[in-house]
Amino acid sequence: MDLIQKFFKKDRLALSRLISLVENHDISSLEILSQIHNKTGHAFIIGITGPPGSGKSTLINELLKHILKAGKSAGIVAADPSSPFSGGSILGDRIRMQDHVMNDKVYVRSVSTRGTQGGLSRSTFDAIQLLDAFGFDFIILETVGVGQNEVDIIKYADSTLLVLVPESGDSIQTMKAGVMEIANIFIINKSDRPGSHSLRKSLMEIGHEKNIPVLMTEASRGEGIEELWNYLNQEKEKFKKTDPKKIKKQRYEETAKILVTEFEKLILKKAHNPFKKIFEEVENQKLNPYEAAQKIIKKLSV
Amino acid sequence: MDLIQKFFKKDRLALSRLISLVENHDISSLEILSQIHNKTGHAFIIGITGPPGSGKSTLINELLKHILKAGKSAGIVAADPSSPFSGGSILGDRIRMQDHVMNDKVYVRSVSTRGTQGGLSRSTFDAIQLLDAFGFDFIILETVGVGQNEVDIIKYADSTLLVLVPESGDSIQTMKAGVMEIANIFIINKSDRPGSHSLRKSLMEIGHEKNIPVLMTEASRGEGIEELWNYLNQEKEKFKKTDPKKIKKQRYEETAKILVTEFEKLILKKAHNPFKKIFEEVENQKLNPYEAAQKIIKKLSV
Repeated sequence: MDLIQKFFKKDRLALSRLISLVENHDISSLEILSQIHNKTGHAFIIGITGPPGSGKSTLINELLKHILKAGKSAGIVAADPSSPFSGGSILGDRIRMQDHVMNDKVYVRSVSTRGTQGGLSRSTFDAIQLLDAFGFDFIILETVGVGQNEVDIIKYADSTLLVLVPESGDSIQTMKAGVMEIANIFIINKSDRPGSHSLRKSLMEIGHEKNIPVLMTEASRGEGIEELWNYLNQEKEKFKKTDPKKIKKQRYEETAKILVTEFEKLILKKAHNPFKKIFEEVENQKLNPYEAAQKIIKKLSV
Repeated sequence: MDLIQKFFKKDRLALSRLISLVENHDISSLEILSQIHNKTGHAFIIGITGPPGSGKSTLINELLKHILKAGKSAGIVAADPSSPFSGGSILGDRIRMQDHVMNDKVYVRSVSTRGTQGGLSRSTFDAIQLLDAFGFDFIILETVGVGQNEVDIIKYADSTLLVLVPESGDSIQTMKAGVMEIANIFIINKSDRPGSHSLRKSLMEIGHEKNIPVLMTEASRGEGIEELWNYLNQEKEKFKKTDPKKIKKQRYEETAKILVTEFEKLILKKAHNPFKKIFEEVENQKLNPYEAAQKIIKKLSV
């Protein structure tokens, strides 16, 4: 495949086209992802999550400066529909990304959050695989921190930053069940605003048990970014030392995830459904859906 | 099974125990749901979604009064962790539910939103099946209106109410991609507060194309509830006239959903995984996850 050869030669257009193919679940998806798979596993994946308006994009912009200064590269995946990174107009005026855009060390991609059902999680995962194989040192994943799907996505990150603002205090309760539990570091951005110290106190209590650090930043002025950068580098060092058991587990789970999505695709289209006859019995009220599922699972288990 | 016999005799304790068994994915789950399935399909399912603090619970409380006055019964499923219906203390002081609790026409159940991954959606679905088969006329499903999982859940509703407050104006943008798109009616609760008219205008614009009505309520004073009740009754009438094609499609999709969850369970436990050998090849780096998935799908397709 010509496109994959170009991809391996660091052709960014080929990268973009491959992400699109994979995102649209083109029939060649599995083939593409399979061919690039042995190049993956080198990027450090940073998840950045938090409510709209918390300044995630500005923070990413500031982080990029450090990444570039260190001679490293970064791919950004924006799964936040309200992010300036998302949508057609990749970069808003608000952020000073123009310096980086032309730079071949930075690549920005938004993933659609519309009409997906578990599919978002898989699309994002696939996009990350491609960026990883392309050779980016860092992959930055930007999401809005609410809902289960978000939590599913952020699980792909090696380190997850939850970005809040002093006004977020009230919504912590709602977030608690979700993203709060998988964050590795809490960031209070726009920390010059009133309320930052009481939020800091609450966050330190919440993060106490799991030893989650709380960092105060003012991304728009670059405050606190150096500390964040140092933190991420430390995490990156730890991340390298993965044990073979963990890798095995990871490969098992990755296979299970991919297989479940493919299985769902297979049965959702009646024409391809290998259990079509059993499904028809359900349609004709000869079996109920649970009997049918049981019957099929039994068949598979033999 | 003794428990199922008791369930059919309208034993509420049996109902509760069956919901728990099914929620914990007890091995008997499929068997239970299969046995009760032909009693389902009669309840009218109302989805009530909206941010915490929008007054969903108060609204539900007011709706219950109408339901009981009409001699009907209701099962409430609370999937909103911040709801007074949720958690151990089923009912808070804030709401005047005490009148109804002892009433055998009302049943309240909260479903856990912790640590699930797609599983919440399935647990909620199963709980609804049980309440439906038990004979409740209405099932009220209360969720926080954010995230994909929420959207997945609310799809089970026959009619979905999005409850907002005048202050919600700002968050509409974020919600847009999700719950906004599947709401059947917009409700502005606490409509005595400033901002309700401008929110009404925005909502009417958003709902214009799909003909979504906008209703103003003050649930705490019972204002607007009569109108809501009338609206729901009209919807209920429409709902009765379902065509056989739609039912077939629904049964197909229901089977697919159940099968996918069961398939995932089957492969996630290595001991039961019928494709264990292929998974081991992945663990031992002889295949990559995509090759393995392809291989298994090909096997299934034969």
